[in-house]
Amino acid sequence: MRKTLANPADGATTQTGDATTSPGWVAIVGGGPGDPELITRRGWRLLTEADVVVTDHLAPLPLLDELTRRPIVIDAAKYPNGKSMPQEQINAYLVEHALAGRNVVRLKGGDPFVFGRGMEEVQACVEAGIAVQVVPGVTSAIAVPALAGVPVTHRGLTQAFTVVSGHVPPGHPDSQVDWSALARSGATLVILMGVRTLPSIVEALLDGGLDPATPAVAMVDGFSPRTTTLRCTVAELPDFSEQITPPAVTVIGAVAGLDIGQAWLTALGSPTL
Amino acid sequence: MRKTLANPADGATTQTGDATTSPGWVAIVGGGPGDPELITRRGWRLLTEADVVVTDHLAPLPLLDELTRRPIVIDAAKYPNGKSMPQEQINAYLVEHALAGRNVVRLKGGDPFVFGRGMEEVQACVEAGIAVQVVPGVTSAIAVPALAGVPVTHRGLTQAFTVVSGHVPPGHPDSQVDWSALARSGATLVILMGVRTLPSIVEALLDGGLDPATPAVAMVDGFSPRTTTLRCTVAELPDFSEQITPPAVTVIGAVAGLDIGQAWLTALGSPTL
Repeated sequence: MRKTLANPADGATTQTGDATTSPGWVAIVGGGPGDPELITRRGWRLLTEADVVVTDHLAPLPLLDELTRRPIVIDAAKYPNGKSMPQEQINAYLVEHALAGRNVVRLKGGDPFVFGRGMEEVQACVEAGIAVQVVPGVTSAIAVPALAGVPVTHRGLTQAFTVVSGHVPPGHPDSQVDWSALARSGATLVILMGVRTLPSIVEALLDGGLDPATPAVAMVDGFSPRTTTLRCTVAELPDFSEQITPPAVTVIGAVAGLDIGQAWLTALGSPTL
Repeated sequence: MRKTLANPADGATTQTGDATTSPGWVAIVGGGPGDPELITRRGWRLLTEADVVVTDHLAPLPLLDELTRRPIVIDAAKYPNGKSMPQEQINAYLVEHALAGRNVVRLKGGDPFVFGRGMEEVQACVEAGIAVQVVPGVTSAIAVPALAGVPVTHRGLTQAFTVVSGHVPPGHPDSQVDWSALARSGATLVILMGVRTLPSIVEALLDGGLDPATPAVAMVDGFSPRTTTLRCTVAELPDFSEQITPPAVTVIGAVAGLDIGQAWLTALGSPTL
């Protein structure tokens, strides 16, 4: 393994490895739900080959400390004035570094195609003629409930699950989701990015005919040591608004009522950390 | 690393490593969509520590060839008379080997909690007092479409996706899914195990009000070199019944119409293999 060390503080202007005019590649990598061992073997290998890593909010940053060949790290979650970097700026960084001959990993939390804007980054690379690959990741939508002992599907309970972003609330003009239909679908509902909007989501689901006694579970900071799990009914979820803070995953459906989870966690300790 | 070699042919009666009376552990591991590099780092590490591996239909078997310390391998997908091993028998193997002091990996395709009966195996271990952990995997429901250039979510197109098993067809007494509600939900639909039942699923979706011109894409043998991708409208899917053979993943929704996929695959070759 090469031991070339780039100085991360030099940022975008540092050239690692041999200077070259042939373009590098871009890999859009799903880093998984947070635990550094839950990235794929391919994602990890590409990280070890990367000259530049562009990180995201919720990307598993401890992975970077394991790298012996240090890449340039661009933190797209931090930007002046406390804002996230605009998507166009992220796309531009990916293309610019690859055109300069560097191999670029875009490291995301979860999976790149689950509310990750991964395809927008693929499109930017394709338009620029850059070789791009997508490395799927373990999505938090499935893995965070699993940690709490909640399977998104279970024989006899449901044959479907829906993963839905709560970022755009019910009734908002940008919403493409019919929450009333989801309420009747029979699918387990897994809500990501739905903390502020949770009361209006619950209202829409109950208006749509969902049984108020349907079990629910909310997992706050799902893959951190500070994780908290709240179990209640869907109708009671708004009562916990103050405890349910980002990042949170909320599961609504019969699977949330499986009591194996608590016994398992109590008896055997946290099974996946 | 220990080089103790067990003779796989000896099956369940072989004892590897030191004889011991303290029980081993069981890990229910998601092996990902088929590519051996798409297992997680934790899943791979546990495989290298396993005395016994119980494999599943669609588990990434090439991983076993990479192991220098050969475990006992029990193939639960093969059974006399061409049937799969009953779930109770699989559960019994997991418990029996762990009680005999062996470390057991249950290696599944995809994620253990996505139609994988993973929780049933967890329950069996908990009831027997065996330490069990679940290692989430990359689900084929997201990764196989990604390979074909289809993101399950895309900004401006949808804020939700539903993964549904087609194993139990619409109208069947065991079905807990309201296909008519799914048709109206606005969520991308990802159908697994829905090859034989695809015509009746399409009929239920169209009856439920889904636009017959909604784009669809079917991926057959998604992570094998023989992969085939069929693009059409949802109404045309039944016309391709002969080409859509198991294992197949079918995506229905606006994201299936993103034409970046084909250009990307044609220009740059298969991006994730």
